[in-house]
Amino acid sequence: MDDLLRFLRIPSISADPAFAGEVRKAADFVRSWLERAGLENAQLIDSQEAGAHPIVYADWTHAPGQPTLLLYGHYDVQPPDPIEEWISPPFEPSIRNGNIYARGAADDKGQLFMLMESVAESLRKNGGHLPINVKFLIEGEEESGGRHIDRFVMENAPALSADAAVICDTAMFAPEIPSITTGLRGIVYGEIAVEGAAHDLHSGDYGGAAPNALEAVAQIVSSLKSREGKILIPGFYDRVQPPSAAEIDAWSRLPFDPEQFRENEVGSPALTGELGFDVLTRIWARPTLEVHGIRGGYTGEGAKTVIPATASAKISLRLVPDQIPNEIATQIASAIAAACPKGVTARFNLMHSAPPCLIDPNNPFLTKAAEAMEHVFGKSTAYIRCGGSIPIVSLFKQKLGIPSVLLGFGLPDDQIHAPNEKLCISNYLRGIASLIEYYTLLSNPR
Amino acid sequence: MDDLLRFLRIPSISADPAFAGEVRKAADFVRSWLERAGLENAQLIDSQEAGAHPIVYADWTHAPGQPTLLLYGHYDVQPPDPIEEWISPPFEPSIRNGNIYARGAADDKGQLFMLMESVAESLRKNGGHLPINVKFLIEGEEESGGRHIDRFVMENAPALSADAAVICDTAMFAPEIPSITTGLRGIVYGEIAVEGAAHDLHSGDYGGAAPNALEAVAQIVSSLKSREGKILIPGFYDRVQPPSAAEIDAWSRLPFDPEQFRENEVGSPALTGELGFDVLTRIWARPTLEVHGIRGGYTGEGAKTVIPATASAKISLRLVPDQIPNEIATQIASAIAAACPKGVTARFNLMHSAPPCLIDPNNPFLTKAAEAMEHVFGKSTAYIRCGGSIPIVSLFKQKLGIPSVLLGFGLPDDQIHAPNEKLCISNYLRGIASLIEYYTLLSNPR
Repeated sequence: MDDLLRFLRIPSISADPAFAGEVRKAADFVRSWLERAGLENAQLIDSQEAGAHPIVYADWTHAPGQPTLLLYGHYDVQPPDPIEEWISPPFEPSIRNGNIYARGAADDKGQLFMLMESVAESLRKNGGHLPINVKFLIEGEEESGGRHIDRFVMENAPALSADAAVICDTAMFAPEIPSITTGLRGIVYGEIAVEGAAHDLHSGDYGGAAPNALEAVAQIVSSLKSREGKILIPGFYDRVQPPSAAEIDAWSRLPFDPEQFRENEVGSPALTGELGFDVLTRIWARPTLEVHGIRGGYTGEGAKTVIPATASAKISLRLVPDQIPNEIATQIASAIAAACPKGVTARFNLMHSAPPCLIDPNNPFLTKAAEAMEHVFGKSTAYIRCGGSIPIVSLFKQKLGIPSVLLGFGLPDDQIHAPNEKLCISNYLRGIASLIEYYTLLSNPR
Repeated sequence: MDDLLRFLRIPSISADPAFAGEVRKAADFVRSWLERAGLENAQLIDSQEAGAHPIVYADWTHAPGQPTLLLYGHYDVQPPDPIEEWISPPFEPSIRNGNIYARGAADDKGQLFMLMESVAESLRKNGGHLPINVKFLIEGEEESGGRHIDRFVMENAPALSADAAVICDTAMFAPEIPSITTGLRGIVYGEIAVEGAAHDLHSGDYGGAAPNALEAVAQIVSSLKSREGKILIPGFYDRVQPPSAAEIDAWSRLPFDPEQFRENEVGSPALTGELGFDVLTRIWARPTLEVHGIRGGYTGEGAKTVIPATASAKISLRLVPDQIPNEIATQIASAIAAACPKGVTARFNLMHSAPPCLIDPNNPFLTKAAEAMEHVFGKSTAYIRCGGSIPIVSLFKQKLGIPSVLLGFGLPDDQIHAPNEKLCISNYLRGIASLIEYYTLLSNPR
């Protein structure tokens, strides 16, 4: 536990170049910790690229005939802003009410440390041996969108060969409900860019004759989705697969109250979204379109009567199986062109994308993880989905041909990416115990 | 001319508190210049309000039985940004190709100086006498939206009594076409404010169930105007009066080519606006709605998947006779409420407004001004309108009961509010000559 607190004290903020030294310090910490614990080949892998942060690799592969797990986590953290809202300082871990409060406590240093500690303890208990083989692959750019890990996995697939990946970077559905995530939405993120007049114009002199690029952006954004939440892009839903009957049945038994969700988590007068689908289905298994920011004209204090010559909107679409990011990007580009009003031009600039993915819940690497957690938590494991995107899962599937076991021990109220991030200490301990149990179960095929 | 250049060197930027001393210096310059020229009661009038800039007043009222003109202008200027686009520094006047280049050359120091110089020269020529009575009312908050002048006019109507106001702060329709503006559009400016969730949410976790305030703003903005430029606010057009047959006839004879206007002034692929109205009618005599800026979510570099909890849009409506600002503000508030989608609340916050106004072109103060300019320019005077708003014109009409003679000697390409603002020197000289001739014509009723 002291080691985890030391780890949490390192402000490894990957998005801020001023903290590059601290990010490296965190990588060094992980590398040397794993080496001391008995892992082999512990090393930092640097990228040629300016501003990139190192990957930490280490392995132990002396259990022939036993499965190999690729253990993934990240040692970098989100910036702590707004810093004044923290009750205790973000990089001075504080223990209160059975929780550790610190930036990275849940996302992902604390959860990564469960993987590290479970392997170390397993080595100690078994006299320097593990019941299975492990390869640690730990990155420092998860929170800053760096692509070092992508290139590394693509270029080193043989060395990273494994039977499954284990990722501790998600949350349990609710306290006391051990959970495995079996589906992630994909994403297409880009910008609608509109150009009208040659330069900004005065609305007194030109209003009524000159095109307004900002108005065009609003019209285009509005045209993409109906007021009932249906996305109006031709072909958009063609490949959407409904969740399986087993999933729908399992979700209906989860302790979930839409009214409490609205009141406690969202806080709006009403929930929105597609008619005919319940809330969990809408956020887990239905695609969406959101606008994240609109730029153009004047947004400062007071009044300015400008007709903006250019404007843009950042939008993203969350995708579900079997939607294909490139196909969706083409569809949205066409829809934007079709919705473009007179007097302006509009185009779609794709910024990044990731495919949706499903993980077969009957895969033995998942069923044994569920079994291990059930032993430790004394409750049956819930199979849930996550509405977000974890691009590394698709990468592991496509480039290494392996499934990912998304074993999360965070809680929905852990405040990741926000002030007062925390990790529940009993979940931390039960997470480690579950992982140790998991390694043992994997080595004893029944 | 040297005096004008000295005046232009003072950076009297009223919107920037750092330049308050320079603004006052410009006011002092005007006051003492008028006093030296032979005007009486020359004084600065300060406001109690913090950050207000002084009004300059001076008069000469020794022509009993002759009309009295209230001569209005402003000595403050717009900020010069972007400063790197100026060919010569904004506050070091430079004479090139028959123009004076400087911030304020046309708007409004140069045009104000025509009023000052015409009176001074008239006094000199007539041995310290004028053919008419004059009262100068010169403000320093025109570019910063200050309301000192409004309060001063309302509280001092008897002292400001006059037969007509003369305002040199507009432009000629085209080079060599002396012009009088006989109509101004009014304005209603405000903000659409939308609130949804209690705080920003992550689109992965909540997309499909939580309302997006920014999307709601786009939907509301789009709902207010059709793609054919028709404003869809119930009752909005009820009071709109078409221009008179004489105006339509006069406008049709102006040298105006919509295609050149599109290419040279707007620079967009096409012009926009209401079907069934020509360009001059659309910008002079039809009401409009424009969106000036949309705030909410994330507009920085890169991708952020936020669902904005709040968002807002600055919008304005340009009004034409006989639309009433308060009535329009009520209509727009209702239309916004009606267009508000599920899950959010929306309201309209009025920021400022001004009524539209028409000035009778047959008023003798206008016909004599037209005659004076025709003598000097050797061309007949065009009666035009302006799509912008000059709130002081309505104030003079309502509080002093006098018409305003909008005698502008600027040109459409003077780049007011932009880098490389200029004033054509021959227009400056002919403007002064026209004003002197005007005073003489007014004193000799035929």
